[in-house]
Amino acid sequence: MNLREKFIKRRLLAKGFVLDFVMDTVTLPNGKRAKREFTVSPSAVAVIPLLDPGHIVMVKQHRYPIQKTIYEIPAGKIDKGESALECVKRELIEETGFRAGKIKKLIHFFPSPAFCTERLTIYVATGLKPVKSSPDEDEFIERAIVPAGKVMQWIKCNKIVDAKTLIALLYYRAFIRRI
Amino acid sequence: MNLREKFIKRRLLAKGFVLDFVMDTVTLPNGKRAKREFTVSPSAVAVIPLLDPGHIVMVKQHRYPIQKTIYEIPAGKIDKGESALECVKRELIEETGFRAGKIKKLIHFFPSPAFCTERLTIYVATGLKPVKSSPDEDEFIERAIVPAGKVMQWIKCNKIVDAKTLIALLYYRAFIRRI
Repeated sequence: MNLREKFIKRRLLAKGFVLDFVMDTVTLPNGKRAKREFTVSPSAVAVIPLLDPGHIVMVKQHRYPIQKTIYEIPAGKIDKGESALECVKRELIEETGFRAGKIKKLIHFFPSPAFCTERLTIYVATGLKPVKSSPDEDEFIERAIVPAGKVMQWIKCNKIVDAKTLIALLYYRAFIRRI
Repeated sequence: MNLREKFIKRRLLAKGFVLDFVMDTVTLPNGKRAKREFTVSPSAVAVIPLLDPGHIVMVKQHRYPIQKTIYEIPAGKIDKGESALECVKRELIEETGFRAGKIKKLIHFFPSPAFCTERLTIYVATGLKPVKSSPDEDEFIERAIVPAGKVMQWIKCNKIVDAKTLIALLYYRAFIRRI
């Protein structure tokens, strides 16, 4: 069966700095109408920075919506006019102070396909070299160089609770190299 | 350093049926003020339905915000007054027509910690028995019983793009049982 829902009209409920909150009216497969509310978000990237075979550069930051300070891999939304790869390089330098020698795409996913348009692509960065970085003065991020085995333990015991970080590292471990 | 951001005030930008879109004013660790926009969402659950050692009950549905029809594990938001476990049982029956003999908690995570409050907990259901279910007539979901090895191939080749499904199955494979 074709499960597709067809667009009829959109109502902008609110415009934020980064996100728009919208309500679309759609036609269901049975011909009835329904409403779909969701946020329209720019695409984003995340990157596993492999410092050497055994260490991952993690970032620790406060995530206000969930009221927690958590460990994640570096990530960010793609700026207007920026390519995904440029965004990976920029975020990596801004958040960790490392420039990547090589960047490889891993997978993409949708963090919340029922309620947000956001598409997130994960990369792996190797050949890292420290550079002089000037982080945004209103962005508070701590860098942590963590042994890969310890990160996997953190995942196992549910200390890591960020979706992109879980997907990136579990996928890497399952299909690229056991860490 | 304490990275915490302190609440000053909230502005409700828009109220949806399920989500609220809000803008909070916060105090940063350096004492400056900043705005944080995000959606306030109910908590949710997802469940890996293991039909027998080798098969997973997946659901296929259209996700309007991302304009794709995708495979996922069954999931849903927790209703008011409902416990997480009650929600798992209800969603499993509604979406797959199976009642669980045993349900076990796996992990929890935040799909989008920078832009949404949603907390999602993953469970594993075993001892499945078919029951008479009456799915919502305006919910279009197809059930698919898929060999576990095939699902892992779908993950590897990036056919699975839903965050909760990736996390649930990769975590299960890494730490519970290799599938």
